[in-house]
Amino acid sequence: MDMGLIVAAVGAGALALAFALYKGLWIKKQDPGDRALQDIGAAVREGAMAFLAREYKVLSVFVLIAAAVLVALNKPELRLVGVSFLIGAICSALAGFFGMRVATLANMRTANRAREGLNPALHVAFSGGSVMGLCVVGLGLLGLSALFLVYSGLWGGDLPTVSTRVLPVLSGFSLGASSIALFARVGGGIYTKAADVGADLVGKVEAGIPEDDPRNPATVADNVGDNVGDVAGMGADLFESYVGAIIGTMVLGAVAAQSMPLVLLPLAVAGAGIFVSVVGTFFVRTREGGNPQMALNMGTMGAGALLAALAWPIVHRIAPMEFFIGDAPYTATGVYYAVVAGLGGGILIGLFTEFHTAEGRKPVVAIAEASTTGAATNIIAGLGVGMMSTVLPILTLASAIIASHHFAGIYGVAIAALGMLATTGIQLAVDAYGPIADNAGGLAQMAKMDPEVRKRTDKLDAVGNTTAAIGKGFAIGSAALTALALFAAFEQSAGITEIDVTKSKVMAGVLIGAMMPFFFSALAIGAVGRAAHTMIDEVRRQFREIPGILDGTGRPDYARCVDISTKAAIREMILPGVIAIATPILVGYFGRLEMLGGLLCGVLVSGVLVALFMANSGGAWDNAKKYIEGGHFGGKGSDAHKAAVIGDTVGDPFKDTAGPSINILIKLMCIVSLVIAPMLI
Amino acid sequence: MDMGLIVAAVGAGALALAFALYKGLWIKKQDPGDRALQDIGAAVREGAMAFLAREYKVLSVFVLIAAAVLVALNKPELRLVGVSFLIGAICSALAGFFGMRVATLANMRTANRAREGLNPALHVAFSGGSVMGLCVVGLGLLGLSALFLVYSGLWGGDLPTVSTRVLPVLSGFSLGASSIALFARVGGGIYTKAADVGADLVGKVEAGIPEDDPRNPATVADNVGDNVGDVAGMGADLFESYVGAIIGTMVLGAVAAQSMPLVLLPLAVAGAGIFVSVVGTFFVRTREGGNPQMALNMGTMGAGALLAALAWPIVHRIAPMEFFIGDAPYTATGVYYAVVAGLGGGILIGLFTEFHTAEGRKPVVAIAEASTTGAATNIIAGLGVGMMSTVLPILTLASAIIASHHFAGIYGVAIAALGMLATTGIQLAVDAYGPIADNAGGLAQMAKMDPEVRKRTDKLDAVGNTTAAIGKGFAIGSAALTALALFAAFEQSAGITEIDVTKSKVMAGVLIGAMMPFFFSALAIGAVGRAAHTMIDEVRRQFREIPGILDGTGRPDYARCVDISTKAAIREMILPGVIAIATPILVGYFGRLEMLGGLLCGVLVSGVLVALFMANSGGAWDNAKKYIEGGHFGGKGSDAHKAAVIGDTVGDPFKDTAGPSINILIKLMCIVSLVIAPMLI
Repeated sequence: MDMGLIVAAVGAGALALAFALYKGLWIKKQDPGDRALQDIGAAVREGAMAFLAREYKVLSVFVLIAAAVLVALNKPELRLVGVSFLIGAICSALAGFFGMRVATLANMRTANRAREGLNPALHVAFSGGSVMGLCVVGLGLLGLSALFLVYSGLWGGDLPTVSTRVLPVLSGFSLGASSIALFARVGGGIYTKAADVGADLVGKVEAGIPEDDPRNPATVADNVGDNVGDVAGMGADLFESYVGAIIGTMVLGAVAAQSMPLVLLPLAVAGAGIFVSVVGTFFVRTREGGNPQMALNMGTMGAGALLAALAWPIVHRIAPMEFFIGDAPYTATGVYYAVVAGLGGGILIGLFTEFHTAEGRKPVVAIAEASTTGAATNIIAGLGVGMMSTVLPILTLASAIIASHHFAGIYGVAIAALGMLATTGIQLAVDAYGPIADNAGGLAQMAKMDPEVRKRTDKLDAVGNTTAAIGKGFAIGSAALTALALFAAFEQSAGITEIDVTKSKVMAGVLIGAMMPFFFSALAIGAVGRAAHTMIDEVRRQFREIPGILDGTGRPDYARCVDISTKAAIREMILPGVIAIATPILVGYFGRLEMLGGLLCGVLVSGVLVALFMANSGGAWDNAKKYIEGGHFGGKGSDAHKAAVIGDTVGDPFKDTAGPSINILIKLMCIVSLVIAPMLI
Repeated sequence: MDMGLIVAAVGAGALALAFALYKGLWIKKQDPGDRALQDIGAAVREGAMAFLAREYKVLSVFVLIAAAVLVALNKPELRLVGVSFLIGAICSALAGFFGMRVATLANMRTANRAREGLNPALHVAFSGGSVMGLCVVGLGLLGLSALFLVYSGLWGGDLPTVSTRVLPVLSGFSLGASSIALFARVGGGIYTKAADVGADLVGKVEAGIPEDDPRNPATVADNVGDNVGDVAGMGADLFESYVGAIIGTMVLGAVAAQSMPLVLLPLAVAGAGIFVSVVGTFFVRTREGGNPQMALNMGTMGAGALLAALAWPIVHRIAPMEFFIGDAPYTATGVYYAVVAGLGGGILIGLFTEFHTAEGRKPVVAIAEASTTGAATNIIAGLGVGMMSTVLPILTLASAIIASHHFAGIYGVAIAALGMLATTGIQLAVDAYGPIADNAGGLAQMAKMDPEVRKRTDKLDAVGNTTAAIGKGFAIGSAALTALALFAAFEQSAGITEIDVTKSKVMAGVLIGAMMPFFFSALAIGAVGRAAHTMIDEVRRQFREIPGILDGTGRPDYARCVDISTKAAIREMILPGVIAIATPILVGYFGRLEMLGGLLCGVLVSGVLVALFMANSGGAWDNAKKYIEGGHFGGKGSDAHKAAVIGDTVGDPFKDTAGPSINILIKLMCIVSLVIAPMLI
């Protein structure tokens, strides 16, 4: 075993964290602005950190019980899986904690720097996002490679030990990450949309005050929601994908390809990805008056191109010239092509997502036009766009699967997922930049700063909407490939040679699996509805009972709204979470391994489709509204605009709660199965 | 081979047709009412028959070309598949033709008899529906068994000949039925919703005139639409399922179980189903003031119970005491239990559908309540109900599959589908009764009859809404089992021993297959949008240009609107139709049999889910609106009502166009694969 390689991976993880620390300290040094801005920023920050504290408190109980169960039920030699689980959960939680801490420092500083111009504001917001991105990849790779080093030091680094002991125990790390991700995504999604819908429906629609108006009691909760949903939630989601793709590839390298270098290769590719992500952050520069979108694209595209170049020597250096999976021979060059297929697939899916959801493109304009005949036609058009938007990403995914399998067998499919995810550091930086810019605008408005500031942050935010949509497409595509890698690792670990849908039990499993995303979405949507309802009642109550609230002389009780969102999110995340974890265990226990395989196939396939449908219709509705607000089809206040607002509201729980939660669902069900596989054989 | 059995099946088919003729003549003898009613009834009738004529003209070109292709590309001994295809298409078209002819006679007579009371009106409407139901099962069984008689007479009735020649050629009958069904469902669905949305948005919303008002130019087209969509479209859908389930079971009896009695058993069970359906029609009786829903339930439940009793001696008489599939032994009693599992599963799915969509039940009341906070919450609640409504039917389906496979192997799954579909005669009668009653109300309104008449037909129509929702659930559930039977038959015919989703090509096939229902729905929804747009423009034009149209002195140009719907429906049905047929051919050709198997698995699983989601959310929105109109949450004209109308409009293309079309899509792709399998091996 090449120890130097693992140490290099540990080093790459540490590099990411060091760079994140440097960026974080730089942000902290920036001027946080005047008193009003600092006050309101502190309220958002406290709300966000309070939510995280409460969430982690509930989760720590769950995590400790789950770890105990994993220790108790496993064979003696695999009991440390509980420890991996714990460390994975802690790493994911820490990434969320650091990312959000810095994001809530960056938001007010972005607003403050926006007084000077677009470029300094972009710089702060993107730096804030890059802390989140680098914490995720840093903690993910550092945790995994350090644990790998420890376990193989304890038990031995030979291939049989690695495949039967080290990797099964290590996969607990991924399960820990998934568990946190599930609750962070579902809870965060419910939080942000309950606050958003509550703030909009009573504030904007009933009381007629603008968005982010300080008179609205739910407005702080709304801004907190952007952080817990779009920063911490997204971070936990990608942390899970990132870790899952690495583990899945390692397992397949050991069990399918039976090659120690192929077990280590994913660590090296991930390390290279961290390096190019750090370099990529330096490409994000724009002149005053320049296009921030171009700057961000430079960062991700530059990092992608760099990785494609760097992967060639790395793969050829580490991977064996020729290796076998079963009887089929594959080559190092084939592995390289698989990495590139994943990388390219990820970029393509992002571009297709952009086409279907960006302002001014045909699908969004069509929805805007349909708004002129009312809300019904707006909704129908949006649902149609969402459904149509699944076609090209699915064809891309199918092609990436076939191509990467052609080049390097099932190992190729897994490393394609990693190829897509290796640049997560910068991808997530671009993604988390959006909610920071959005928050900066909210703070500027609430702190009554110069309207010019809000205009600049709006310009940054508009770009953020597109990057958010692309980020969602990227998250879904990578979740699908990661789930596929974990699915293949599960089959290999469980010793399943086929999952044959001509068998009725497998088909029943596929049907039940395919139903899960619908069930899960219905639960998530219902939860948002209930939470929003409580919020609406509270905002109405405050408008009624607090004197002078609407003319600005009375102070709304922000904390109460933050508290309602927090409680609702934590209460409502339990049931879907338990269902997602319990279903594969129950099906595995009663239906055995093959039916469980069917279940995973079903949830994977239907999950990708439902997630794409929901994320893209939600994104398209959002931008159709923005397009009308930009002065088309009657502009703001027209009937078309009212219809578009309804579509946007429908899209909110779609794109920010149910859709993203499904990413987690499919990965989680696969990783649960992978971890319990040794108990089911 | 037991010739007596086949002759009995021919006889049962003839019995159904004779009974349909008797019922049809009885309806014709009823008094069609006064001049005004006859005039408006004639307009609807002419519109409906004109659409059918135009549709069949286009289809005849397609059918002839497809038949020629089938003849040209097949091995010489299988060329008659083209003839079976032609006859299947003709039988399906004839069933639609007869059913709609009688439905458009029955609608005005229902309105006329409604002057006397509820009971005589129910009697006429249900008789009209039963003609459709019995024509479908009669032509289906008669055509299949007569062709079987001819082919086995030509080539021999021994098992090897039957499995390698007679059944492959006979399966063309099912393909012919599917092709007509596809265009009838898609075209009919587009027709009815374009007219409906056009009539509602301009007439009800813009001009403020009530539904079915004779001043609305699109109102005749709207009533024509009920017939072409809900009568002819639904009939073609169930014709396809019915025929597909019989053929699929026959193929599995020959190829999997290798037992001639098991090849003939489905014909006998179908014959028994016709007998109990005819008997069941006599159970549909209600006293004046009685509950029509109870009467209809008596009919279907009575027929179901009778079939469960009758199937015991039939199965034990015909099926071998013991038979083998592979090495697994099964018994005649096991086959009986499989039939009952299908029958029971169908009833359960109907009940679950009823729960999620019926007025006054919890889900619908929740949507109605959500309407009080506006259209957005109404839409979100409806989408949530639709998603949640997939859970129980899917668990039922999965259980039915596992149980029937446990009892009689893959043959059991197929005959379970037939158990569900054997009572199609009466199921469809109950289903087609709805649009006839709906039409009767429309005619009464347009002919300015006594408001008491409309009240009575409304009562019948309200029941019709529930039966329609149950019928849709039944259609989806039976389509799923039928597709599964055809899927299994395809595997057996193609000699595929496994469709292993651990293989990347199969997984890619599953992904693409699962995407098809989304793609197809997006096309169907887009088509409705475009067609409705043209209709809206036309109705607005008539209101503007025809003098006195709104005060009742000018006569609207009904024919023009009928023409627009007809043209749009025929134009828009082509692309989805071609895609549905071409996809399995392309995937089969380029991806070979296994990827094709994956494709079918994907389209089947995702199709059932999307169809349930769409049909049930559509039904629930519709009844939430009705519930509010019944005086809850502010009643008619309230803001909640306005929100509920938007939900209902969104639901229209869901439940009446896209959703039902998916039933056809999944069956059609399976039957196309079954027919082309011999060419791909």
